[in-house]
Amino acid sequence: MLSTHIQKMTTRPPTVEDSFSFAHDEALRLVTGGALQPVEIQYAIYGELNAERDNAVLICHALSGSARVADWWAEMFATNEGDARPFDASRDCIIGTNVIGSCYGSTGPVSTNPATGARYASDFPLVSIADMVRAQSVLVEHLGITRLRAVVGGSIGGMQALQWAVDYPERVARVVAIGAAPLGAMGLAFNHMQRQAITSDPLWQGGDYTTDHPPAAGLALARALAMCTYKSPELFAERFARHANRNGEDPHRALEERYEVGGYLDYQGARFVERFDANSYLLLTKAMDNFDLARGYASEAEALRRISAAVTLVGINSDWLFPPDDVRHLAERLRAASVNTHYHEMQSSHGHDAFLADAALLAPLIIEALAAD
Amino acid sequence: MLSTHIQKMTTRPPTVEDSFSFAHDEALRLVTGGALQPVEIQYAIYGELNAERDNAVLICHALSGSARVADWWAEMFATNEGDARPFDASRDCIIGTNVIGSCYGSTGPVSTNPATGARYASDFPLVSIADMVRAQSVLVEHLGITRLRAVVGGSIGGMQALQWAVDYPERVARVVAIGAAPLGAMGLAFNHMQRQAITSDPLWQGGDYTTDHPPAAGLALARALAMCTYKSPELFAERFARHANRNGEDPHRALEERYEVGGYLDYQGARFVERFDANSYLLLTKAMDNFDLARGYASEAEALRRISAAVTLVGINSDWLFPPDDVRHLAERLRAASVNTHYHEMQSSHGHDAFLADAALLAPLIIEALAAD
Repeated sequence: MLSTHIQKMTTRPPTVEDSFSFAHDEALRLVTGGALQPVEIQYAIYGELNAERDNAVLICHALSGSARVADWWAEMFATNEGDARPFDASRDCIIGTNVIGSCYGSTGPVSTNPATGARYASDFPLVSIADMVRAQSVLVEHLGITRLRAVVGGSIGGMQALQWAVDYPERVARVVAIGAAPLGAMGLAFNHMQRQAITSDPLWQGGDYTTDHPPAAGLALARALAMCTYKSPELFAERFARHANRNGEDPHRALEERYEVGGYLDYQGARFVERFDANSYLLLTKAMDNFDLARGYASEAEALRRISAAVTLVGINSDWLFPPDDVRHLAERLRAASVNTHYHEMQSSHGHDAFLADAALLAPLIIEALAAD
Repeated sequence: MLSTHIQKMTTRPPTVEDSFSFAHDEALRLVTGGALQPVEIQYAIYGELNAERDNAVLICHALSGSARVADWWAEMFATNEGDARPFDASRDCIIGTNVIGSCYGSTGPVSTNPATGARYASDFPLVSIADMVRAQSVLVEHLGITRLRAVVGGSIGGMQALQWAVDYPERVARVVAIGAAPLGAMGLAFNHMQRQAITSDPLWQGGDYTTDHPPAAGLALARALAMCTYKSPELFAERFARHANRNGEDPHRALEERYEVGGYLDYQGARFVERFDANSYLLLTKAMDNFDLARGYASEAEALRRISAAVTLVGINSDWLFPPDDVRHLAERLRAASVNTHYHEMQSSHGHDAFLADAALLAPLIIEALAAD
């Protein structure tokens, strides 16, 4: 995937894909009380830092994303001179990092625990959105960037962007968070059930499964459930209606024969277990649950008053995981804390997933946000 | 539970709780091709059939209900003279039956298979809503009732009520179906995932689990998922918000410590496995998926044109399992088929569950429907 983009971007500086280790001397202390030492951060850079070092834009990925932003947000990148796209590697220095706790190169449950020489697995500590951001901040400092032009992300990527603005107010000029707010009770419910699906799978083994025998059924079901929360009822109705599964199954014939939506969800689940680690999934959904800007401050209002960045929030009309009202209410609380706040509502039938699936609709909002003063 | 109601209804004829066996001579052929022989129907009667035999009202239960209507729909019953309640055992003959495929007394997967002398378990055939209704019709005939004053039900109970009107047009004067319509793609998705939760549990054993070792974790997760679809995001937000679980758990402390909504869902799941059979759950959700009045007829329109009953449909504004638009669209198709159709939309934050949880709001609509000509 990435190589295709690099080919298209022949006139642009190539991606620098690299990893950075730190905390050799001092552990990265986590807000939950645990610590990691050392910490590795997988990152990708598209473009080059300019002489003024003021063209760096940090992109934060969502639950199952990676540092390779151009892989999962390709539509946001200019591929030809003059393209009206938010990210242009000939002008910007676009940085993606894999969050700690994930399984795409940064330190996570599949990494080796230096204390035992084996995989961390169940020994990996809880990480919060603030911990992820703190690790990113060390990398950003290492890259010689004192102030980011912007931090941009959707879903838990948007949570990270907001956390940056609160925890490092002097180091972020602009924040764009799409489909992100503290999770409501229904969202907490769905994340809880996804974790139950994994931890109820006997192969999970309390987190200490072997790589040959992961809790595949549990993780696949968790992913299927998540897919429903990422999409909207109207999209499913349009795409699947009540059609029988394409391969000739007849749901009226036998218990195991499916409607098309069932076949789709099973397929999404099966693909996901090939590429994602169950313990990482548990950790990252937990971090999503626990996102609360008030943590570490006297109140959410006090946290928000720290922000000096211009903040753009985007709600999605058909998003039922992060309903647009929740995002708009967060924008109101930001304004009440005297933050320079912009709120947009995207009109898309794609649900929460619209920040990826309808990137073309989102791009102009990000362009505007990156130009804001 | 029932004894309480009987005590309250001292001036009313007591409940006749009984079961009826049929198909000794001829098997009950199922629309999927299977057959059951014999068939047992568990039923409860509140009140007595009058001399004209025109006061019988059949109440159809939803997924996990039973024949004992006064247990799960107590608010619908008059307890004192002059109560404005839809069902009055001093006037009406209220009949509840447990559907075939369930586990509350009628023939289902926990019944003995006469061919083997053991429990049916995985040998139990698929049943459809039409099969359930056909079995009920034999019981109703046995009770000496040629025409029901009304058939009333919510959710898959409402599906049965509609199926009655189509399959036995001359035997039903009125139909009331609440929160019922052919299931949309998102609803099909959630039922599919509930079945996946059960069938992925290694204890399910292809359906041939022992009663000592049922697939409890899978069934509990299925129930938790179902509870989310029965309730609304606004209700969860109001009831649980982002509160930590009441017993002192702190979700920020450990992976397994929960928010209150997680504790609630786990509790609902654990209670459910004590009272419900996993194979019945699979069968009944499958029947719900497969509800389609067109089956057995040239088209849905042709099926609807058979109806002579007055039909009252009730949608619930916060129902996202059976969105009110789906119910209203069905009302429009009924009208297009020249059916005497009434549509009401209940305003309740209880979601699909409102037909049980907000029975007091629903009662006047049922009273009106039962009086309609």
